[in-house]
Amino acid sequence: MNKETMTDTIVSAKQKLGLTWEKMAVDLNMSPVWLASACLGMNSAPQEKATAIASYLGLDDSVAAALAAFPTKIWDQAVPTDPLIYRLYEVVGVYGDTLKEVIQEKFGDGIMSAIDFSMEVDKIEDPKGDRVLLTLNGKFLPYKSW
Amino acid sequence: MNKETMTDTIVSAKQKLGLTWEKMAVDLNMSPVWLASACLGMNSAPQEKATAIASYLGLDDSVAAALAAFPTKIWDQAVPTDPLIYRLYEVVGVYGDTLKEVIQEKFGDGIMSAIDFSMEVDKIEDPKGDRVLLTLNGKFLPYKSW
Amino acid sequence: MNKETMTDTIVSAKQKLGLTWEKMAVDLNMSPVWLASACLGMNSAPQEKATAIASYLGLDDSVAAALAAFPTKIWDQAVPTDPLIYRLYEVVGVYGDTLKEVIQEKFGDGIMSAIDFSMEVDKIEDPKGDRVLLTLNGKFLPYKSW
Amino acid sequence: MNKETMTDTIVSAKQKLGLTWEKMAVDLNMSPVWLASACLGMNSAPQEKATAIASYLGLDDSVAAALAAFPTKIWDQAVPTDPLIYRLYEVVGVYGDTLKEVIQEKFGDGIMSAIDFSMEVDKIEDPKGDRVLLTLNGKFLPYKSW
Amino acid sequence: MNKETMTDTIVSAKQKLGLTWEKMAVDLNMSPVWLASACLGMNSAPQEKATAIASYLGLDDSVAAALAAFPTKIWDQAVPTDPLIYRLYEVVGVYGDTLKEVIQEKFGDGIMSAIDFSMEVDKIEDPKGDRVLLTLNGKFLPYKSW
Amino acid sequence: MNKETMTDTIVSAKQKLGLTWEKMAVDLNMSPVWLASACLGMNSAPQEKATAIASYLGLDDSVAAALAAFPTKIWDQAVPTDPLIYRLYEVVGVYGDTLKEVIQEKFGDGIMSAIDFSMEVDKIEDPKGDRVLLTLNGKFLPYKSW
Amino acid sequence: MNKETMTDTIVSAKQKLGLTWEKMAVDLNMSPVWLASACLGMNSAPQEKATAIASYLGLDDSVAAALAAFPTKIWDQAVPTDPLIYRLYEVVGVYGDTLKEVIQEKFGDGIMSAIDFSMEVDKIEDPKGDRVLLTLNGKFLPYKSW
Amino acid sequence: MNKETMTDTIVSAKQKLGLTWEKMAVDLNMSPVWLASACLGMNSAPQEKATAIASYLGLDDSVAAALAAFPTKIWDQAVPTDPLIYRLYEVVGVYGDTLKEVIQEKFGDGIMSAIDFSMEVDKIEDPKGDRVLLTLNGKFLPYKSW
Amino acid sequence: MNKETMTDTIVSAKQKLGLTWEKMAVDLNMSPVWLASACLGMNSAPQEKATAIASYLGLDDSVAAALAAFPTKIWDQAVPTDPLIYRLYEVVGVYGDTLKEVIQEKFGDGIMSAIDFSMEVDKIEDPKGDRVLLTLNGKFLPYKSW
Amino acid sequence: MNKETMTDTIVSAKQKLGLTWEKMAVDLNMSPVWLASACLGMNSAPQEKATAIASYLGLDDSVAAALAAFPTKIWDQAVPTDPLIYRLYEVVGVYGDTLKEVIQEKFGDGIMSAIDFSMEVDKIEDPKGDRVLLTLNGKFLPYKSW
Repeated sequence: MNKETMTDTIVSAKQKLGLTWEKMAVDLNMSPVWLASACLGMNSAPQEKATAIASYLGLDDSVAAALAAFPTKIWDQAVPTDPLIYRLYEVVGVYGDTLKEVIQEKFGDGIMSAIDFSMEVDKIEDPKGDRVLLTLNGKFLPYKSW
Repeated sequence: MNKETMTDTIVSAKQKLGLTWEKMAVDLNMSPVWLASACLGMNSAPQEKATAIASYLGLDDSVAAALAAFPTKIWDQAVPTDPLIYRLYEVVGVYGDTLKEVIQEKFGDGIMSAIDFSMEVDKIEDPKGDRVLLTLNGKFLPYKSW
Repeated sequence: MNKETMTDTIVSAKQKLGLTWEKMAVDLNMSPVWLASACLGMNSAPQEKATAIASYLGLDDSVAAALAAFPTKIWDQAVPTDPLIYRLYEVVGVYGDTLKEVIQEKFGDGIMSAIDFSMEVDKIEDPKGDRVLLTLNGKFLPYKSW
Repeated sequence: MNKETMTDTIVSAKQKLGLTWEKMAVDLNMSPVWLASACLGMNSAPQEKATAIASYLGLDDSVAAALAAFPTKIWDQAVPTDPLIYRLYEVVGVYGDTLKEVIQEKFGDGIMSAIDFSMEVDKIEDPKGDRVLLTLNGKFLPYKSW
Repeated sequence: MNKETMTDTIVSAKQKLGLTWEKMAVDLNMSPVWLASACLGMNSAPQEKATAIASYLGLDDSVAAALAAFPTKIWDQAVPTDPLIYRLYEVVGVYGDTLKEVIQEKFGDGIMSAIDFSMEVDKIEDPKGDRVLLTLNGKFLPYKSW
Repeated sequence: MNKETMTDTIVSAKQKLGLTWEKMAVDLNMSPVWLASACLGMNSAPQEKATAIASYLGLDDSVAAALAAFPTKIWDQAVPTDPLIYRLYEVVGVYGDTLKEVIQEKFGDGIMSAIDFSMEVDKIEDPKGDRVLLTLNGKFLPYKSW
Repeated sequence: MNKETMTDTIVSAKQKLGLTWEKMAVDLNMSPVWLASACLGMNSAPQEKATAIASYLGLDDSVAAALAAFPTKIWDQAVPTDPLIYRLYEVVGVYGDTLKEVIQEKFGDGIMSAIDFSMEVDKIEDPKGDRVLLTLNGKFLPYKSW
Repeated sequence: MNKETMTDTIVSAKQKLGLTWEKMAVDLNMSPVWLASACLGMNSAPQEKATAIASYLGLDDSVAAALAAFPTKIWDQAVPTDPLIYRLYEVVGVYGDTLKEVIQEKFGDGIMSAIDFSMEVDKIEDPKGDRVLLTLNGKFLPYKSW
Repeated sequence: MNKETMTDTIVSAKQKLGLTWEKMAVDLNMSPVWLASACLGMNSAPQEKATAIASYLGLDDSVAAALAAFPTKIWDQAVPTDPLIYRLYEVVGVYGDTLKEVIQEKFGDGIMSAIDFSMEVDKIEDPKGDRVLLTLNGKFLPYKSW
Repeated sequence: MNKETMTDTIVSAKQKLGLTWEKMAVDLNMSPVWLASACLGMNSAPQEKATAIASYLGLDDSVAAALAAFPTKIWDQAVPTDPLIYRLYEVVGVYGDTLKEVIQEKFGDGIMSAIDFSMEVDKIEDPKGDRVLLTLNGKFLPYKSW
């Protein structure tokens, strides 16, 4: 079973069971962002978690195997047009140089890892309009000289 | 004075005074990310803040005027090659669809604003390697029908 | 039912019933532009409107569900070649900087929202040739500092 | 004098005189959008209007000649990144096919001219946040067969 | 019936009947260029002409309906590689600025319409090698000020 | 003297003398299109014509030499945005396949040369709006087999 | 039968008969390069040659008809990645300006035709490593003035 | 002295001395194509040849040093628009797959080197129009397995 | 059997037999990198090795024939997004000019062949985190003059 | 002093002193690849090494400061045309998927770091032609789940 079929199977089971990523994540003791990303095929799940997810949704071992497979992460290098996703690119475009300045001032020459990395989404209720809070957490990797 | 000259003037004064964005931000009671972004010319500063920044650095009114001017925000639509900035694009590329799923499940059909928006950078010390914490905070805007 | 099938189903029913977007919009008390955009899959319909549209066309609940689903808005970033659509891009290309000047002079630093937004099409009859009147109405969103 | 120098000269005079496009447009009995677009070099001004604009700003005949010259209209075919301008492209991208449907249903096979065309910007005050109103008015041109 | 199927149906009938665009055009009293372009799906035919074409080829009403439908004109924005078509782009590339100079000198600031437009192909016999004569005829549209 | 300087020199002399391409072409017994194209640097002039043009404008031998030099013809492969030039691309885009059909039906497998080629611009006066007539004349070149 | 099916049919017959382009070319008295290019669908064959090729391979008239059809020559404008083909582009990229210098010095302002054109491939045996010899032969076409 | 200045210096000396690449090549006992390519900066000259070229043109050692420097070979990856150079790309585009077929049939899996490579231009006089003969000669390099 | 089907067949057999590229390579006395690349269809296998691979996996002669066929090597010219592959491009991007400096200083003007080439992957165990060692070995090819 | 000026200054001093990267690297006890990359501005040097390099070349503190500055690493995302650098891209293009297979089989799901990374160039003398040996050494970073 490839990742595309796996995602269709999982999303379909999730809809039939009336679940949300949030509810699944709480029940499975995982982060909603990581869980959704593994189910959309953009991250591999360790074997134990793969089995837990498939079993929770009443799906068989081929789904667990597909969750555990190492993905080839393909995403459009053209900036996406969907407004929700575009706004994220806009943030990175507008603030990219600023973040380089502030992070490297704080940490030295290096990068924030996108591999040793996690992310969360929270909702801040506000009478003037609720707010989305995204938290990105990545290991700092310094350049080496040799 | 245009934004490029303004940035050169500010960065040069900052280096001569041995300042960091962090120190400036604390002294001026602003966020380091917003302050750096205004000084790099990607955001306009309200008049009062513009004057405070210029005055703090011992620079004249033309710098304050340039800080207050409304910028045209131009950034490369080709994905940047600098590794620190590229990793941010990679995060948005890998997790874009996941964030759409999780945010819209939580908030309904709409977007996280990149206009009514703020962002912070923090350092989490860790013996296995320090970690970068980015916090993005944007107002949720629902689509309307008519 | 995905958005593509939904659009095919709706357009086919509309043709069989000899309807126009205008007539449907009047009968359903919606805007023709918004109605067409929801039926073409570029906007989600609130549940009540989704049900009203499907029912009006004699279509079943799966169509209503598809109308209510949150779309991923994908459009060609290459400038389209169809002459009607190209002329709209030409207007935005030729007048983009002008609109930035005039809007920000009137409102301050910020943008016209494309989310909290509506649009209408009208016909102005004219013996020298009828004219198309497009009206775009979007909330002004000011940048914040922090 | 080429169009770039003309624009710099006009914008500089306008700033020194403390004028806005709106005030100039009222005094000169022209539309603010058209006036700004001619001064930014994206439209030619008829000789009489060119002379009136230059004279109003206390500028000489070379500015009037530059205003009257026929421009080569060059704009980025890559979608611009400035958020105000990008939102206009997003509107055209999201609603392009919808507008083709609704306009051609109303007028027949043809286009809205971007040449025999005018546009206005208005402000609608609203306690929940002011709104921008853009009005585009273009002649309908039917295709011919032969 | 969509435009692609229509074109296949027409081209197939034309081949079986041993017709040329030229012969069809003479018999139907239309221009060969316009006729071919309508049959290739790049222009809509007025109802009467659509019926005449379908009937001439012994095809049914669904073909006539497809001929009358308003097309979405899609063509590659990358310069085509077929040598016959490329040479046309080369002509426009090499002579574009020249044509702007000569046309606007003759007519004022404006454009040659590609909507209110017709075109013919003729053959000039010549012992040193026959020549292709293309004639393009478009209405001049002046820019307006407002 | 390179082609850019040559063009500036010629255009400047032409303006001072109050000439048009048309008037120059009549006086020099050349086509206005070819003359403008040579003066804009997109074609080389045979030595005799180069000398005649320079002499007519009161310019020296270095201009004649630059007119006679073989140009490197560079033009944007991205479709140009100026509306007059864009409409020419639109014509080629919309009618490219049609012209291939009609020309190859008339002449066999081959192309219309863009090298052994000439072009004219004429004005057709019309009370409903004047029309632009472009005439392209190129040698037909058949493919060979070997 | 379209060109793709024709190529598949021919290549399959060639493999079953254990033929090479070279052997076929010798037997049919054609050039191997031209023969392969016609069979790959990038050139049309005159009727007589088309019949000879099809008959030699034991294929029927529909193959001969497809060989005789006028092709639309489509090739990737992005530089191909296959190393053999890329090296040809590299040669044209590195030596393009050089060839323009040397050819136009020898022949005057004009081009080498790619239409009235032929090409051969030969093998030069060499103990230090065999060498590929490509010979391109195209008619020189001078530009005309008018 | 960089390669650009070197080329300008050499081309200027060559014009003053009334030389052609052909004459220089005969006198210096080099190929005209290689000589032009070294002087245009796309190949390095062995020290002895570099000295001979500079000395022949009456230029000093800095030109010889620049001729001997290893170039960075940069050429447009977008297909060039100059008609002479474009036709070369068209040949490679149209015949690329054909050449792969014919060369690999003759030599096995591998490529024609563009490094261990030479090229010549010849003129074939012909009453129906002279012909350009290009000869490319490259070492065949087989792939290895390991 | 084409290369895609061959790869699917081989990968499927490999999974059923519980093999790794490493184990296969040791048993077949080939390099794991070369073996994987031949099985993924990016290199041809000499007949003997092709037969050995197919036979080892219990697959028939059509797989061996497909392994021996000469591939057309197609790879995305847009930089890939998968993080493992992207990091390799980043290395080449960041160090490309450096490698040109260091290699040409050591070897003279020329290139490292990607045809007469081999590559290995090794693992260096390290308590602070294992390391990947890539070794690339290519013949140096000097440019020739002529 | 910015990185470009720094590189020019260093390369110029290196040429005057008749040094090679290899000799400098041995004397300074650094790797030639890293040293060249720092001097070309693509890596920052730790303060001590920066001072040692500047001092070795007889250059002042501003060069040392520029060497220590954190670079913005910019490289062409279009595949470069210089043959030496292109061959490196070709290797990554042809073997990218193979390396992903072989590395992830050996190490699990993750990447080879381009940050915690070093590289060397060696020469293998060989009577059939010397060979270039590139050695890349990067830390393996496993993905995390959360």
